[in-house]
Amino acid sequence: GFAKVDHHRAMRQGFPEVIFGQGKTAAQIARIAQAIYAQGAAVLVTRVSPEKAAEVKRLMPQLAHEPEARCLSAPAKQPPPPGKGKVAVVAAGTSDLPVALEAVLTAELMGSKVERVFDVGVSGLHRLLAAADVLRSASCFVVVAGMEGALPSVVAGLVDRPVVAVPTSIGYGAAFGGLAALLGMLNSCAPGLSVVNIDNGFGGGYLAGMIDHLG
Amino acid sequence: GFAKVDHHRAMRQGFPEVIFGQGKTAAQIARIAQAIYAQGAAVLVTRVSPEKAAEVKRLMPQLAHEPEARCLSAPAKQPPPPGKGKVAVVAAGTSDLPVALEAVLTAELMGSKVERVFDVGVSGLHRLLAAADVLRSASCFVVVAGMEGALPSVVAGLVDRPVVAVPTSIGYGAAFGGLAALLGMLNSCAPGLSVVNIDNGFGGGYLAGMIDHLG
Amino acid sequence: GFAKVDHHRAMRQGFPEVIFGQGKTAAQIARIAQAIYAQGAAVLVTRVSPEKAAEVKRLMPQLAHEPEARCLSAPAKQPPPPGKGKVAVVAAGTSDLPVALEAVLTAELMGSKVERVFDVGVSGLHRLLAAADVLRSASCFVVVAGMEGALPSVVAGLVDRPVVAVPTSIGYGAAFGGLAALLGMLNSCAPGLSVVNIDNGFGGGYLAGMIDHLG
Amino acid sequence: GFAKVDHHRAMRQGFPEVIFGQGKTAAQIARIAQAIYAQGAAVLVTRVSPEKAAEVKRLMPQLAHEPEARCLSAPAKQPPPPGKGKVAVVAAGTSDLPVALEAVLTAELMGSKVERVFDVGVSGLHRLLAAADVLRSASCFVVVAGMEGALPSVVAGLVDRPVVAVPTSIGYGAAFGGLAALLGMLNSCAPGLSVVNIDNGFGGGYLAGMIDHLG
Amino acid sequence: GFAKVDHHRAMRQGFPEVIFGQGKTAAQIARIAQAIYAQGAAVLVTRVSPEKAAEVKRLMPQLAHEPEARCLSAPAKQPPPPGKGKVAVVAAGTSDLPVALEAVLTAELMGSKVERVFDVGVSGLHRLLAAADVLRSASCFVVVAGMEGALPSVVAGLVDRPVVAVPTSIGYGAAFGGLAALLGMLNSCAPGLSVVNIDNGFGGGYLAGMIDHLG
Amino acid sequence: GFAKVDHHRAMRQGFPEVIFGQGKTAAQIARIAQAIYAQGAAVLVTRVSPEKAAEVKRLMPQLAHEPEARCLSAPAKQPPPPGKGKVAVVAAGTSDLPVALEAVLTAELMGSKVERVFDVGVSGLHRLLAAADVLRSASCFVVVAGMEGALPSVVAGLVDRPVVAVPTSIGYGAAFGGLAALLGMLNSCAPGLSVVNIDNGFGGGYLAGMIDHLG
Amino acid sequence: GFAKVDHHRAMRQGFPEVIFGQGKTAAQIARIAQAIYAQGAAVLVTRVSPEKAAEVKRLMPQLAHEPEARCLSAPAKQPPPPGKGKVAVVAAGTSDLPVALEAVLTAELMGSKVERVFDVGVSGLHRLLAAADVLRSASCFVVVAGMEGALPSVVAGLVDRPVVAVPTSIGYGAAFGGLAALLGMLNSCAPGLSVVNIDNGFGGGYLAGMIDHLG
Amino acid sequence: GFAKVDHHRAMRQGFPEVIFGQGKTAAQIARIAQAIYAQGAAVLVTRVSPEKAAEVKRLMPQLAHEPEARCLSAPAKQPPPPGKGKVAVVAAGTSDLPVALEAVLTAELMGSKVERVFDVGVSGLHRLLAAADVLRSASCFVVVAGMEGALPSVVAGLVDRPVVAVPTSIGYGAAFGGLAALLGMLNSCAPGLSVVNIDNGFGGGYLAGMIDHLG
Ligand SMILES: Nc1ncnc2c1ncn2[C@@H]1O[C@H](COP(=O)(O)O)[C@@H](O)[C@H]1O
Ligand SMILES: Nc1ncnc2c1ncn2[C@@H]1O[C@H](COP(=O)(O)O)[C@@H](O)[C@H]1O
Ligand SMILES: Nc1ncnc2c1ncn2[C@@H]1O[C@H](COP(=O)(O)O)[C@@H](O)[C@H]1O
Ligand SMILES: Nc1ncnc2c1ncn2[C@@H]1O[C@H](COP(=O)(O)O)[C@@H](O)[C@H]1O
Ligand SMILES: [Mg+2]
Ligand SMILES: [Mg+2]
Ligand SMILES: [Mg+2]
Ligand SMILES: [Mg+2]
Ligand SMILES: [Mg+2]
Ligand SMILES: [Mg+2]
Ligand SMILES: [Mg+2]
Ligand SMILES: [Mg+2]
Repeated sequence: GFAKVDHHRAMRQGFPEVIFGQGKTAAQIARIAQAIYAQGAAVLVTRVSPEKAAEVKRLMPQLAHEPEARCLSAPAKQPPPPGKGKVAVVAAGTSDLPVALEAVLTAELMGSKVERVFDVGVSGLHRLLAAADVLRSASCFVVVAGMEGALPSVVAGLVDRPVVAVPTSIGYGAAFGGLAALLGMLNSCAPGLSVVNIDNGFGGGYLAGMIDHLG
Repeated sequence: GFAKVDHHRAMRQGFPEVIFGQGKTAAQIARIAQAIYAQGAAVLVTRVSPEKAAEVKRLMPQLAHEPEARCLSAPAKQPPPPGKGKVAVVAAGTSDLPVALEAVLTAELMGSKVERVFDVGVSGLHRLLAAADVLRSASCFVVVAGMEGALPSVVAGLVDRPVVAVPTSIGYGAAFGGLAALLGMLNSCAPGLSVVNIDNGFGGGYLAGMIDHLG
Repeated sequence: GFAKVDHHRAMRQGFPEVIFGQGKTAAQIARIAQAIYAQGAAVLVTRVSPEKAAEVKRLMPQLAHEPEARCLSAPAKQPPPPGKGKVAVVAAGTSDLPVALEAVLTAELMGSKVERVFDVGVSGLHRLLAAADVLRSASCFVVVAGMEGALPSVVAGLVDRPVVAVPTSIGYGAAFGGLAALLGMLNSCAPGLSVVNIDNGFGGGYLAGMIDHLG
Repeated sequence: GFAKVDHHRAMRQGFPEVIFGQGKTAAQIARIAQAIYAQGAAVLVTRVSPEKAAEVKRLMPQLAHEPEARCLSAPAKQPPPPGKGKVAVVAAGTSDLPVALEAVLTAELMGSKVERVFDVGVSGLHRLLAAADVLRSASCFVVVAGMEGALPSVVAGLVDRPVVAVPTSIGYGAAFGGLAALLGMLNSCAPGLSVVNIDNGFGGGYLAGMIDHLG
Repeated sequence: GFAKVDHHRAMRQGFPEVIFGQGKTAAQIARIAQAIYAQGAAVLVTRVSPEKAAEVKRLMPQLAHEPEARCLSAPAKQPPPPGKGKVAVVAAGTSDLPVALEAVLTAELMGSKVERVFDVGVSGLHRLLAAADVLRSASCFVVVAGMEGALPSVVAGLVDRPVVAVPTSIGYGAAFGGLAALLGMLNSCAPGLSVVNIDNGFGGGYLAGMIDHLG
Repeated sequence: GFAKVDHHRAMRQGFPEVIFGQGKTAAQIARIAQAIYAQGAAVLVTRVSPEKAAEVKRLMPQLAHEPEARCLSAPAKQPPPPGKGKVAVVAAGTSDLPVALEAVLTAELMGSKVERVFDVGVSGLHRLLAAADVLRSASCFVVVAGMEGALPSVVAGLVDRPVVAVPTSIGYGAAFGGLAALLGMLNSCAPGLSVVNIDNGFGGGYLAGMIDHLG
Repeated sequence: GFAKVDHHRAMRQGFPEVIFGQGKTAAQIARIAQAIYAQGAAVLVTRVSPEKAAEVKRLMPQLAHEPEARCLSAPAKQPPPPGKGKVAVVAAGTSDLPVALEAVLTAELMGSKVERVFDVGVSGLHRLLAAADVLRSASCFVVVAGMEGALPSVVAGLVDRPVVAVPTSIGYGAAFGGLAALLGMLNSCAPGLSVVNIDNGFGGGYLAGMIDHLG
Repeated sequence: GFAKVDHHRAMRQGFPEVIFGQGKTAAQIARIAQAIYAQGAAVLVTRVSPEKAAEVKRLMPQLAHEPEARCLSAPAKQPPPPGKGKVAVVAAGTSDLPVALEAVLTAELMGSKVERVFDVGVSGLHRLLAAADVLRSASCFVVVAGMEGALPSVVAGLVDRPVVAVPTSIGYGAAFGGLAALLGMLNSCAPGLSVVNIDNGFGGGYLAGMIDHLG
């Protein structure tokens, strides 16, 4: 075939290759998804439009579609070991939701419990402070923000757990497709914070899920 | 003469041309400063090293030197009209002080009362919240920050007065000489916030002083 | 709900959250708009296409549509206090009109009187100079320009009131989506000038309206 | 004073504010360091030249100097709790050592055991594979690389633990001061990998130390 | 005519002008292709969509269409001299295939034998190492990769033959349309590696074919 | 010799190769200058520090030094034909003088009459308008400006003769070494305006001198 | 009206405002064109798609459409004075033709004679050298090129007349929408060369036409 | 030791690790050089200042210093096999010589015969054409150029052998440290051309030497 699915990874890393749906045909997606499914591993397809999702589901009805997260997925045959604590996924604006929900879904497929704290951007701090109990109790944070991308800094200043910052391409003008948010997060002076690629909800959720399973 | 001092500006705008000291010799600075001083207008020279400042003072002892602000200045012959309220100059880190103090000095030369709130970066929000009374009482804010530049967003979300954001070139790596802070501030979703050039403490203080004199 | 409307802001800041229409569905927009409207606050939706505007209006007929400004809006139940003076919105070219009109509408919703000075780019200075009376009488300026973005500098050199510069994405080639205009405005040597994000007519109008209400 | 030391942070986060030495005078550094030391907390000063380090030590002899890491430090009065596992700090070239050693020192001050795997760049893979036992046994990785920055991707493909990637400014020409390495790391397709700012050895070591103490 | 086909090139360089199909109409392509074909030289049209390819074929049925490579082609009337060895075209991901196949086709038209090693990205090194025999036996390598673009470095570290690196525009966010891969490849510390433009499969295959015919 | 002086150029183009002094030793400069001088052609060395200029003059006393223009020069043996009109060199700030004077000197060496209009930046338009007679009478304009670089646009809007815009690296922060001025000039909507490289006073003066000799 | 047509310009500058068609409706274009036409001045509309051109022609049949140049135009009522010499428009590739033809049309409307030298890119120098007679006889050159943008440098090295370089957005990958060509042209070491904005055929043709009328 | 010298490389690749001298101390350089020398392999140290070179030579007198190439070197104990043909190193300006000579030295250490063609920039094509015999006879080209970087395109259009393009950081203003030359070379439409990092004379010479030994 045209694709060498990396089955070693499921063994080496506890989770198989994610399928980046954008730019692949429904047929290609279904073929790779089936190969992974046949191994009994969890399947996750990201960045699928509603139309492509419907087409893939016709070819492989075992997959569930979450339109807001733009994902297709199927759990592993064996349920994964549960996480040690709780992952909090925090998002600044309602436009950041698709990326945040991709993170939520990824961490849940890995076996983690996930709390959602959405629409709590820094221009109205009281909204974040109202979620103080989640801030206190989570073992790891995924913080998703576009525009100026300041939210992860503020969260990392309030907690003493790892914060995975996910910049989004939300914004306009000098947001430059997420560059402003990315640079803001990389330059945060709050320690314990690290950054993944723009719009990479999967990457944020995966790292948080991995940290939540350590120890 | 090599320089056409813009005396119209003092009339049109209530404050003469500032002298950007960097890249000018002490003799050039003194010559322009004296021309302004002779009109009875306030003199402000920005970005002067300690050595150059000493040299200029030898040529023109009427100027006062503030080494932390890197400025030389002399008040106008006629004291300017007082401002309507109070300008607050807020700075994120101790490294941002020279820029913040340039803003302080500018607004004071224009006749404004100025409050200083320094070292209150977003990675420890309690420090900013401790200055709640200043946040409540000022008529205009100059907020100075480098690195991720998130402080102006947070301040603008707490107050309902104009916030002039001044990005600084403080930071390293992906700060790119203040670019990260600049982009962060331009992308703020907190309304009432506008931005001046990187390290432009004069520009921030001038606009705040002008707003403080309106009405 | 998916969105935490920031009702505190209407109290803290005299104006509720603006709704950035681009990338939201008509249903989402209507739902947020209704929540704001129910509080009696002014509603403003920016960046809506004619088609989306029609759909939103079907769901919420109280909103008025201004197609040139690409906005939907409804005034606050209580008329806002009038401004102290007059806001001038100045635009360089006819292509900058949508952004300029977004600024006009915002300032008017806040209770300010607004003067329009349109199509007065720097390559034909006589057109700007013909508006000398507006330049003399306004309390605050919003100056909108694309391409080389020189107009705010020229205006700020002629007046002694705050100038809020709004770069637009109009231009081609090395305009780089508004970057050239943005950099030009940030580097202006005319004091009293500050800058908001590319195409952010709302941001410019809001700050001008706020300044016009000070004192 | 000019600096508000964030003592809350030691309580909130188990480690006080690090002191970024570059651009501060020896006197400023000593003053902040003493305030932290007086609380019994660990002291860490990064980016100090040999000359400045000597000066600071004259003012505060309790600090130890590690010239290769360009750091001054003193352990906390109370030894920190030990980590759960072992942090591996991996570096691509000998020029990356100062950044890597800053990470080592940070994690050690936090109480973690640290393994060093240095000079194992991707153009000679056998050198990395020779450290297979460390790759197998560490609980968290800090991977430091300049130039094309490919090493973290390769490591993250071999292990199933978190990899904190630290790009360095080592390189020339189109390395653009670490930008090439930074972009390479952000675009890695190996999951479990996140990135901190260019040359931010402290940030990498801090996050690794924090993860090593979870659970 | 509107186009001066460079027939000298076929003489000077053994291969005529390639026709870059993107942005040309089917009629324009057919006209240029026929002029080349009439000389007896090999014809290669790159970047043609399936629709445009069909249209061109209607006008010039001698051309063969390879949809995966997005190319149309016809061999030279005289078969070219065979290469001295074997060109290996290596690709990181399945999304890089169109670019890789453009390289394959080009080298084959020049008379070279080509080996394909596809889907062997650096996050699963075992897949590349499994192709050790190809790595040992080829005379020249074209290595195609997007995202972080690390594969050419790794290959060049394993072989002692020229490696032509082809960055692709595959990726998202901070991939910036292939910029991250391009910079990564330019900064490789593995000698023997050089780089062509983003997505330039033709350029990679041409240079490899040329090297394979030397001696 | 290490340098092939392009004597053909003096014949082809009426002016020999300029010697870019920066990065060359005094000995290298003198050697190339002497070769040009021996042909009877005009000699122009740009970007020489006072120290290097003194050293070169010791080796070649025929050269005259203009410290403000940072140039060394000697006229051609045969005086060049006079220009048809008059070149105006216009500069925005006093910091732009070295670049402007390099343009002046170049055009004069080519035989053109040159008018200087200096320190007439756009933030005080009355200063430019005071030079109306020069604007009316010159056959070609060189307009030099840093920071936002708006002056050439304004001049080109007032005259109907060619305007050669020279951006300078004067400015700070988001001036990015002349990039802001360069982009501003390229995006000017005033026709008749073209641009040369940042700080390229020679290039501006050369083109103006050439245009002044046409017809 | 929404647009203040700059009729002064026709008087000041011998040619009225050009109408940039992109982003304007057919109705807007027709209205502005009619205002200009009513003055007896030449009309030029650039960047019009075939569809929009047809619509405008329905509203204003006096306009002629040149689809390859993407322009609509009408000559001035009074034929303009003829140029002094001949303008040469030189283009590198067939894809650069629309921009080159926009330059041709502009210069012709101004009364200049124009020679076309097309498809003569630097990778086959013999094609350019074959046009030696045009190179010798023209009074001014417009040189249009995309990709690496080297053609203007080569032309300017062969002639001693002004060369107006027009970078185009033709290219892919690291061409970055014309940036590579633009930078190449700005950095040319051939004197007598200046640059206009990317794809600005009008600007190139206008300046050449203006130079051709001097003297 | 701090450095793992990659002795495998000498075996795998016929040439050991080059030592990048910039940023290393004389002692570090000498230590690595001695380790390589002890294996009997060729030693090459690039980017050494005259002062550092003298210091290294004191520690290791076997090394020869070529100040113009900024290199230290010693031939391998066993002379390498001779190349199949001849490498031509072509350079545009005299300022590009250090980079060009680094390429020359590298290829010579590998056993290749090298021809030098220097100071033949594209603004005076006759200088390059005068070297027609070298262009005809070499088996591989290294073409070094700064500023607009057009020379490799022109060379590649004249020959049918591989051209390795080396951009240099020579230039000013919009050269942006070699970026303009780099982009120009990547966008060349002349096939057979590939690019290495800015100022990477070693990389160019190494690849040319490798190609010259194939077959
Ligand atoms: N910090 C500053 N911000 C903005 N403009 C400034 C600043 N300092 C000086 N300027 C202006 O920059 C211009 C510099 O030109 P010049 O000093 O005449 O070379 C003058 O118009 C100054 O008024
Ligand atoms: N033109 C605008 N300028 C600045 N902020 C805006 C603008 N339009 C909307 N916003 C804010 O951007 C945020 C977008 O978040 P959301 O709409 O919740 O996805 C909200 O806080 C809005 O108030
Ligand atoms: N993939 C490619 N890589 C490099 N050059 C190309 C490619 N495809 C076409 N070209 C060249 O690009 C130029 C485009 O000019 P034209 O096709 O005449 O507009 C021609 O010289 C082609 O030979
Ligand atoms: N200010 C300038 N603008 C444009 N080209 C220049 C300038 N100064 C020198 N040059 C050219 O740049 C090239 C530098 O190469 P070289 O001096 O031989 O290293 C020569 O061709 C010079 O003619
Ligand atoms: Mg919201
Ligand atoms: Mg602090
Ligand atoms: Mg107009
Ligand atoms: Mg090494
Ligand atoms: Mg794959
Ligand atoms: Mg001045
Ligand atoms: Mg062609
Ligand atoms: Mg030369």
